Amino acid sequence: MTLTKARLIALDWGTSVLRGYLLGDGGSVLEERRKPWGVMHLPEGGFTAAIQGMAGDWRAAAPGLNVLACGMVGSAQGLREAAYIACPAGEEALATALLAVEAAPGVHLHIVPGVRTSGERPDVMRGEETQVVGALARASHLGARSLLVMPGTHSKWIQVGEGRILDFRTYMTGELFALLTEHSILGRPARTALAGKAPPLPSGDAFERGVAAIHAHPDTAATALLFSVRTLVLTGQLKPEDSLEYLSGLLVGDELRCALPSRGEASPASTGDEALTLVGDPSMGDRYRRALKIFGWAAPPLIEDAAPKGLWQIARRAGLCNGV
Amino acid sequence: MTLTKARLIALDWGTSVLRGYLLGDGGSVLEERRKPWGVMHLPEGGFTAAIQGMAGDWRAAAPGLNVLACGMVGSAQGLREAAYIACPAGEEALATALLAVEAAPGVHLHIVPGVRTSGERPDVMRGEETQVVGALARASHLGARSLLVMPGTHSKWIQVGEGRILDFRTYMTGELFALLTEHSILGRPARTALAGKAPPLPSGDAFERGVAAIHAHPDTAATALLFSVRTLVLTGQLKPEDSLEYLSGLLVGDELRCALPSRGEASPASTGDEALTLVGDPSMGDRYRRALKIFGWAAPPLIEDAAPKGLWQIARRAGLCNGV
Repeated sequence: MTLTKARLIALDWGTSVLRGYLLGDGGSVLEERRKPWGVMHLPEGGFTAAIQGMAGDWRAAAPGLNVLACGMVGSAQGLREAAYIACPAGEEALATALLAVEAAPGVHLHIVPGVRTSGERPDVMRGEETQVVGALARASHLGARSLLVMPGTHSKWIQVGEGRILDFRTYMTGELFALLTEHSILGRPARTALAGKAPPLPSGDAFERGVAAIHAHPDTAATALLFSVRTLVLTGQLKPEDSLEYLSGLLVGDELRCALPSRGEASPASTGDEALTLVGDPSMGDRYRRALKIFGWAAPPLIEDAAPKGLWQIARRAGLCNGV
Repeated sequence: MTLTKARLIALDWGTSVLRGYLLGDGGSVLEERRKPWGVMHLPEGGFTAAIQGMAGDWRAAAPGLNVLACGMVGSAQGLREAAYIACPAGEEALATALLAVEAAPGVHLHIVPGVRTSGERPDVMRGEETQVVGALARASHLGARSLLVMPGTHSKWIQVGEGRILDFRTYMTGELFALLTEHSILGRPARTALAGKAPPLPSGDAFERGVAAIHAHPDTAATALLFSVRTLVLTGQLKPEDSLEYLSGLLVGDELRCALPSRGEASPASTGDEALTLVGDPSMGDRYRRALKIFGWAAPPLIEDAAPKGLWQIARRAGLCNGV
């Protein structure tokens, strides 16, 4: 018997990872689990088996709990497609547009829809909208207009105001890094140098050198500097084992170059003087802070665990938190 | 008995493909062969087997012929590493620096070295230096300063003057396109739409739309526009089967945006008024001409078959053309 009663099962269900949270009063995290069961990497038995494996014992112990999920589970490749809702969008619009699905007999799931912008450069998100709701709930300073930066496979720069997502833009920084590391000629020296060895401690110097190279050539695209990852190694100016950190610096630097409000054009709905706030895990937050420093920006605050908080907020608004 | 006597076996030996030429007087191509035996895809038996398979009968019929090779065969991953020579470099410097290798008992091969630039943004080429020599020999208008554009996996923009390579820069356009098509989320709609079907005829409209998107946003990197390949499909503004052409347009457009002399900074040793000349095959040349038109450039001339011509020129300078 626990002092704190469970109120909600919350799932942050991405492409490669499924995170589950058993939430109690006020959205407190009673238990947290991580499984490699992203929507593209489901276990045998598919979505039903993943839900059972993640939350079967939680559901058995508290049969009446609702399950709320966000992320790629609501995409065309997911369990059921939850149509994107349009900007501006906040907690209320998301809670109103939940998609109820019977994942298996007796297993009901609610899915948070994604959010889209329109026009000739449309953009989409799935999962980050829930993190925005969580970040807004966690940080009182975000009441005014703010620019949320969510580093990741598809980094999002999100303009928020009055509790809603106003506009946003996606940078494929993390996916490009993974592709270039695993499949391109640029990853080869590091793959060879590190074969069979433990990865070295991150080389902050090489990362910052990459960021600085972009900062020093503001009119040149990263695509024009990428080959230097190879040539600096070939000419002995960069150690093979540092080359991926340098590559990461080029890609993060290119993201900042395009996305920072000072650039104007590339920044979504920017007035140029918004506060930046990072949303994500501390190691990635630290990386972006070091890069931002090179671009002359003070270290922004970091908000962690935004997804479970956002799922709680949306569930509460939709009346899905049992007994609350 | 042939009227024209063979004078040289020329090999253009890249990462994925090996091209062989039996050359006669004046570098005329008597016979041409293409094998999938790039240095990373050698047949069983390695380099020796590849040379025998490519040119065994040529060597048997004319035992005294020399063999000259250029490209990745001279890299650290190749048969033997031929050290890069420094810019400025032309036919004479290359011919002087050939690396003689005994690939197998009695099988002698000469390898053309690569060329490098130095400084904090060094660059390298292997194979393209030979194409430059061939292009200069083929086109009399190239006597003055000129900017040679060689589209490909690693596109090269090469400043030439007085018969020599003065400076150059590499753009990973082709490799990025292949990576994104085969491994990223951007390639998925086209992979699904085209599964089991013949590829559609190239959609010039979608390619040009991608180029124009870059041209219309000169301050934004392609990395910031890449995600639109996905979002335009998701929002019904781009057909899945056209999406790779649009992606190609973004990447080629980004290359032009950075490399064209009008940009100044990003262009190697440019005075801003050089003639552009394309070097490569006609289909890629046509693609770059259409992209250049969007950037306001007149269609440049195209030089084909530069590699065998360059190998001939270098061999003749080095005294390797039998009886010539």
